[in-house]
Amino acid sequence: MDTVTKPHERLADLLSGEMDAVNALIRERMASRHAPRIPEVTAHLVEAGGKRLRPMLTLASARLCGYEGPYHVHLAATVEFIHTATLLHDDVVDESEKRRGRPTANLLWDNKSSVLVGDYLFARSFQLMTESGNIRVLRILSDAAATIAEGEVLQLTAAQDLKTTEEIYLQVVRGKTAALFSAATEVGGVIAGRPEDEIKALFDYGDALGISFQIVDDLLDYWGGDATGKNIGDDFRERKLTLPLIKAFARATDEERAFWKRTIEKGDQRDGDLEHALELLNRHGALDETRKEALAWADRAKSAMSSLPQSTLRDLLIELADYVVARVN
Amino acid sequence: MDTVTKPHERLADLLSGEMDAVNALIRERMASRHAPRIPEVTAHLVEAGGKRLRPMLTLASARLCGYEGPYHVHLAATVEFIHTATLLHDDVVDESEKRRGRPTANLLWDNKSSVLVGDYLFARSFQLMTESGNIRVLRILSDAAATIAEGEVLQLTAAQDLKTTEEIYLQVVRGKTAALFSAATEVGGVIAGRPEDEIKALFDYGDALGISFQIVDDLLDYWGGDATGKNIGDDFRERKLTLPLIKAFARATDEERAFWKRTIEKGDQRDGDLEHALELLNRHGALDETRKEALAWADRAKSAMSSLPQSTLRDLLIELADYVVARVN
Repeated sequence: MDTVTKPHERLADLLSGEMDAVNALIRERMASRHAPRIPEVTAHLVEAGGKRLRPMLTLASARLCGYEGPYHVHLAATVEFIHTATLLHDDVVDESEKRRGRPTANLLWDNKSSVLVGDYLFARSFQLMTESGNIRVLRILSDAAATIAEGEVLQLTAAQDLKTTEEIYLQVVRGKTAALFSAATEVGGVIAGRPEDEIKALFDYGDALGISFQIVDDLLDYWGGDATGKNIGDDFRERKLTLPLIKAFARATDEERAFWKRTIEKGDQRDGDLEHALELLNRHGALDETRKEALAWADRAKSAMSSLPQSTLRDLLIELADYVVARVN
Repeated sequence: MDTVTKPHERLADLLSGEMDAVNALIRERMASRHAPRIPEVTAHLVEAGGKRLRPMLTLASARLCGYEGPYHVHLAATVEFIHTATLLHDDVVDESEKRRGRPTANLLWDNKSSVLVGDYLFARSFQLMTESGNIRVLRILSDAAATIAEGEVLQLTAAQDLKTTEEIYLQVVRGKTAALFSAATEVGGVIAGRPEDEIKALFDYGDALGISFQIVDDLLDYWGGDATGKNIGDDFRERKLTLPLIKAFARATDEERAFWKRTIEKGDQRDGDLEHALELLNRHGALDETRKEALAWADRAKSAMSSLPQSTLRDLLIELADYVVARVN
């Protein structure tokens, strides 16, 4: 795939004026008159060069729906603030030390700052969405915030639990990733006042895109390699029940079940265990099946988007779904 | 003061039907279909027998404004959810082990659960307030949430800093306590559609009541004793810059400044230091002046409330301001 034509880069080009407005609004609203710690911590994360995929989805969705008002910029900033607050709290919960290639805020400052600055950004996000004056939009975004937190708690209690099913995995993924993607696209249609079937298509696109995005992420944790910039085996070491492992465990022999119980449930991991885990994942076709599920969700995203009237933005969003799975296709 | 006639108990009596509705709504909304950890953690805190002062303020304020609709119950539950979420995160930030006489959630479960369940309750509070359909109410409550988080960050960065002024202290107090009190009373007037001067009076009452409430709390940390159920000296040990200490430091001799620098800035505390600190606070009249400020804020609360038309609820809220400072009067 040609680097110049990555669909998220073309989206960024096409929406650059509005994205500048979003970034200016983010900088304005992450300020604090009284507590300079807040913009310090926020800037560390916001300016680390994330792809701004979620706010871009809101801008693209509103624009492709013909929205002419100013509030898609507020909603895009809202979505990015919710995402940033979630990352700050995630890194505390996961005791992470790196994010986007830099030391995490909890490491550079402390857990307290990450918790409280995250709370501030949540509150700021609710202020921003309130400015839209659209109650339905507020309902969608506050529902998404609740689903995100619920998914995170579910992930916490499902960790190290080999009884975790694919159904629970899907709920976690909807919470941690897809809920914000689908809210990001749905609100674009809502503020543009589009008919219900179009709003539903935008929601379905965001939902399926988010799920495929997260499945790819979880797959690359076992399949990645230098090219993806990810470390292989982080989820295995953290004993997270992601789709590849759930599939492999479902087909495990007695001996293999004992291996998974020792390494994941008991956390007794030794030299060579990751290699053995990878061997088991391949033996049962778990990686390949996970990959097929990611592709199927990307197809669902494309099909939802294809139901909308043709436009440059629509076609770019369809391409984006292909791009998300391109790393494993 | 006769136990039977404590004003918050009479308020609870008078509002018991609506308070039952608030409690039922809280129980309904703290549920989670997927993550049972959420209601477990929430129930531990919500059912520990807090006084429900904040939701009661919202109910009282709406009722005394003649509000007839159903949404004061939602807003009261919103206010209690914001308060509960804040307590969960506070206990993580302060590494607390006890709250309302019971082990804290971060101790019984873990910090991760407290952070994520707190996030869930924040999101739930935004869902609840959205149901009111009143954009001005949403603005007031999301502003309050931002002020609370900002105050907490300010408190974090001001800790151990002897340069903390009374002005910064007041900002912290407005953030950690008064912002939610004033939002709780203000929204009652707003949903009742009262004139601006009455809404302003309700805001001023909540603001002044919250400030006097927090000053009393900070004073009792040096002045309490068995009767109040508080440990003397917690703030000193945690090196928090509260009003008594700020006043004593402002009048300290060179020798005394060296004492405060050692104990608060450097955290080098030895046997007898708390007793010496108390002696210094008394020598400079810092406790008595702090007490006078608490009384002055209670007076401001009463005077704001007195500007509203006479009613049983109004008079009970006036008495409540006296009750808040009765422990130090």
